[in-house]
Amino acid sequence: MVPYYGLQVPLLMDAFFAPRSVAIAGASRSGMKLGNVPIDNLRRFSYAGRVVPLNPDAGEIMGLKAYASIEDVEGGVDLAVAVIPREQVPPFLESCGRAGVRNVIVTAAAFADADAEGARLQRDVEDLARRLSLRVMGPNSIGTIDTSSGLVTSIITLEPVPQGPISFVTQTGLFAASFARWISSSQSHGAAKVACLGNKAGVDEIDMLTYLEGDPRTEVIALHTEGTSDGRAFVDAVSRISLSKPVVVLNPGRTEAGREAMRSHTGSMAGSHDVFRGAASQAGAVQVESFSEMFDCARALAYCPIPRGSGMGIVSITGAGCSLTADACQSSGLVVPALGDEAARAARAGMPDWASFSNPADIWSAIAMEGNDGAYQKVLRAMASQDDIHMLIAVYCVAPQFEFDAAAAMSRVRDEFPDKPLLAVILGGTTEDSRRWFESLEGASIPTYDSVERAVAAAGAMARYSSWLRRKSEAGAS
Amino acid sequence: MVPYYGLQVPLLMDAFFAPRSVAIAGASRSGMKLGNVPIDNLRRFSYAGRVVPLNPDAGEIMGLKAYASIEDVEGGVDLAVAVIPREQVPPFLESCGRAGVRNVIVTAAAFADADAEGARLQRDVEDLARRLSLRVMGPNSIGTIDTSSGLVTSIITLEPVPQGPISFVTQTGLFAASFARWISSSQSHGAAKVACLGNKAGVDEIDMLTYLEGDPRTEVIALHTEGTSDGRAFVDAVSRISLSKPVVVLNPGRTEAGREAMRSHTGSMAGSHDVFRGAASQAGAVQVESFSEMFDCARALAYCPIPRGSGMGIVSITGAGCSLTADACQSSGLVVPALGDEAARAARAGMPDWASFSNPADIWSAIAMEGNDGAYQKVLRAMASQDDIHMLIAVYCVAPQFEFDAAAAMSRVRDEFPDKPLLAVILGGTTEDSRRWFESLEGASIPTYDSVERAVAAAGAMARYSSWLRRKSEAGAS
Repeated sequence: MVPYYGLQVPLLMDAFFAPRSVAIAGASRSGMKLGNVPIDNLRRFSYAGRVVPLNPDAGEIMGLKAYASIEDVEGGVDLAVAVIPREQVPPFLESCGRAGVRNVIVTAAAFADADAEGARLQRDVEDLARRLSLRVMGPNSIGTIDTSSGLVTSIITLEPVPQGPISFVTQTGLFAASFARWISSSQSHGAAKVACLGNKAGVDEIDMLTYLEGDPRTEVIALHTEGTSDGRAFVDAVSRISLSKPVVVLNPGRTEAGREAMRSHTGSMAGSHDVFRGAASQAGAVQVESFSEMFDCARALAYCPIPRGSGMGIVSITGAGCSLTADACQSSGLVVPALGDEAARAARAGMPDWASFSNPADIWSAIAMEGNDGAYQKVLRAMASQDDIHMLIAVYCVAPQFEFDAAAAMSRVRDEFPDKPLLAVILGGTTEDSRRWFESLEGASIPTYDSVERAVAAAGAMARYSSWLRRKSEAGAS
Repeated sequence: MVPYYGLQVPLLMDAFFAPRSVAIAGASRSGMKLGNVPIDNLRRFSYAGRVVPLNPDAGEIMGLKAYASIEDVEGGVDLAVAVIPREQVPPFLESCGRAGVRNVIVTAAAFADADAEGARLQRDVEDLARRLSLRVMGPNSIGTIDTSSGLVTSIITLEPVPQGPISFVTQTGLFAASFARWISSSQSHGAAKVACLGNKAGVDEIDMLTYLEGDPRTEVIALHTEGTSDGRAFVDAVSRISLSKPVVVLNPGRTEAGREAMRSHTGSMAGSHDVFRGAASQAGAVQVESFSEMFDCARALAYCPIPRGSGMGIVSITGAGCSLTADACQSSGLVVPALGDEAARAARAGMPDWASFSNPADIWSAIAMEGNDGAYQKVLRAMASQDDIHMLIAVYCVAPQFEFDAAAAMSRVRDEFPDKPLLAVILGGTTEDSRRWFESLEGASIPTYDSVERAVAAAGAMARYSSWLRRKSEAGAS
C-alpha cells in the first residue's frame, strides 16, 4: 500500500480526474472490445483533452491515431488506463515509468481478488508503483468519472452524468457502471466525481478523502469501503473532513456471513469491522447499511441545511402515513414533538370545529375543505413555526384527486424557514405520475422518497450528523 | 362492533365484492364530485352489474337514471355506497333498512376518527346496523375493489387493476387509491380483492380474513390493521388460515410515537400492540414493518413455492452485492451455506484455474469467460443442486454490457428446481432499462427488487413462514 497523503496530493490526484491527456491500453482495432468503451465514453462525455489509444499494431482506432507503446506518445500522457490481461500489467507499468506517466488506472481483475498468482502479481504492481513513483488506482478498478472535465474511464457504456455536489468513492465498480447510468437517467442530484478503487494496491480511501476534502465541487462524500489499511489515518481524515462536509460511509461486513463473503473476494481485513464502525461513528461519519440508504442520505445532505435538532413534524394525507412515519422516527432516534397551542391554532384556522391537528397531522379533512395546496402549505407552515420542530416530512398520495404543485408549495415554505429541512414522500400512483412528482420535487432540491421509512432514515442520518457537529462545536468552545 | 363471522359470512360478504347492483348516494348532477367518481370507476373497470346514482333531485346522472331515494329503486339494491356528509349517514342507513339493502359502504370521514360528535354518530351507525341487520363497511372507508367482478367503490379515480392472487385488507384508503393506481400501472402481480375498512364500525379484519379464507381467487392475504377488537378470534382465524394461505400483517404502533399517532386519529386500542404482535407471530402471520415490505413479501409468497429451509445461495455480478446480501441474510435469520465440493466443481467447469466459487458467488470473471447467460445459469444451477441451499438470489447490474434474457435463464433453472424460490435484484440502469428488466422478470413470476436488502427481507419472511408450517406439521404428526 503506497500512501500519497500530504501536501502533494491535490496535484498528483488531479490527473485521475482532469488529465490533459489519457491513454487507453487494450483498445481494439476491430469491433467494440472492453478497451474501446472508455474511448466511446470519453466522446459521450465531451471530454476535451487528448485521447490516445494504445495497441501493439498501432494504426488508427475509432478515428484516433493509435500507438504501439505509451513510450512513443509525443507530448506525454497524464493518465494511463490499463484494460489488459493481468499478466501484461507489470510490463505496462514499467513502460509507463519510462514514459514519465505518473497516474495509472488498472482495470484488470483476478489479482488479490482471485488466487495466489494474482496476489503475487498485485505485490509486483505495488513494488513497481513504489519504485517508479506511480499512482496506481486498482487493480480491479473501473476507474473514475469527473462530471466537470468529462473524464470517464469506465469499461461500461455510460451516458453523461449531470454535475452535482456528491462525490462517490467506492470499492465496487457499480458506481461507474449501472449506478452512473441510473443517475444520468433519473437522479437530478448528479455527481461531482466518482472513483472506483477496486483492490486498492495504490490509491486508497484515505488518499481520496484527503483529495475530496479540498475539492470545491464536492459538498458531500459518499464512501463505500470494505475496510481501511490505516485506522488512525482514516479516523483523522474523517473527523477533520466531517467538520466541513459530511462523509457518508457504507461498510459491509456487519455480520459474520458478510465478512466471510468479503474475505473470499478481496481478502479485506474484516476482523476489525466493529472497531472500524465504532471509530467511524466517533469521527462523525454518517453510517449507512445499504446502497439505497447511501444515496438517500447523500442527497438529503446535499439538498438540505443541517437541522438544528432531532424534532420532526409530519404532515400526511393518510392516517397510516402518520403512524408509520412516527414509528420510523422513534426507531431512528428522532422525536415527534406535540403541537403547541399556537401552532395547532394556526393549522386549524378556517377549519370546522371538529378538525383537530396534532403532530403527526392527518390532513385528509383539511384537503377536503381547502384543497391540496392550501392544506399542505398551512399545516407545514404552522409546524415549521414551532421551535422544537427542526425538520418536516410531507407524505403525498399520487392520484388525480390529489394533483397540485407540491414542489412550489414546499419551496415557498422552505423560503420562509430556510434552516429547516423539508423531505417528501410519494406513495403509489402510476409509474408515469410518480416519476413526474419525483422529478418535480427533486428538481426543486427537495429530497423525495417512495416510502416513509426511507425518508425517515435520511432525516435520522442528518440529525445524527447535526448532533455530532454540535458536540464538536461545544467541545471546541469549552 | 357487529361480528358477522360464522356460517352466513360468505353469502353476506359477497355483496361487498360481486353485487348484482350498486347504488351510490352523493352523486352530483353537475360536474365530477366525489360521489361521481365511483360511477366513473365502475365504467373503467367494466363492471357488468347495475349502477344506480342516488340524488335528491333524481333525474339523470352520467347517462344513468338517478333516484331520489334508495327506497324507490325497483328490483332492489345489493350494495349501497354512502358518499355523503356524516350527519346524513344515519337517515340513509334507515332508508337502506326500509329498502331491504343489507350491505353498505360508508365513505364519509369525521366519525370516531374526529371528535365527540363523530364518535356519537359512529355509535348511531353501529346501533342502526345491529337493529336493521345491515353489514356496514366504514365509516371512513373508501370501500372495495374486486378485479374479477369489476366492482370498485373508490372515490379516487382508478385504472383497471389486473387480476392476481393477492387480496389486501387494510384500514387505510391508500390501497383503493394511489397503491391501486401503482399496481395497475406497473405491478404484474395484480390483486384479487381490496377492502379498505376505515373505522371498522361493522365489518372488521376478522370478518374479512374469514371471508378470504374461502375465496378461491385469494392465495395470499395482506392485512394492514391498527389492532383488533377480539384478540382470541383474530388469532384463531390467522392460525387456521395460515395453514392454507399466508397472511402478511402490517401493524403500525411498534413505538410509543406510532401508538400516539394512532390514538389521535382513530382511537385504536394501541396498548395491546405488543400482545397483538406476539400472538400474530405465534399464529403464523408474516409480520412486516412497512407498506413496501408488505408488497415485497406478498408477491414473493404469491410467486414462489414455500422454501424447505432457510439456506440461501447468492449469485452476484459484483463483490459488493455478495457481502451486502450475506450481511442482510444473516440479519434476517437466513443462513448462507458454504459450497460443497460437488457444487463448486460444477460452477467452475470450463473456467480458468484461478476462478473459484464460493457462496456468495462473485461471477464477474465467469461472465467475462462465458457471457452473462452462461455464467448465471451455470452457477445458479450448481448452487440449486446443493441440498442445504433452499432459495437463490441473483444480483444483476443493468448496463448494455450485461444485457441478456435473465427471465428466460431463471425460468429454466426454476423448471429444474421447482421447489426452490428464485429471487432477482436489479441494481442501477436507466429508468427505462431497469423497468424493462423488472417487467420481464416479474412477468415470469420471479419476484424482483431494486436492492439486495428488500429481496432478502422477502426471502426471510418466506423462511419464517416455512419454519412455522414445519413446526405445525410436526406438532400435528406427533
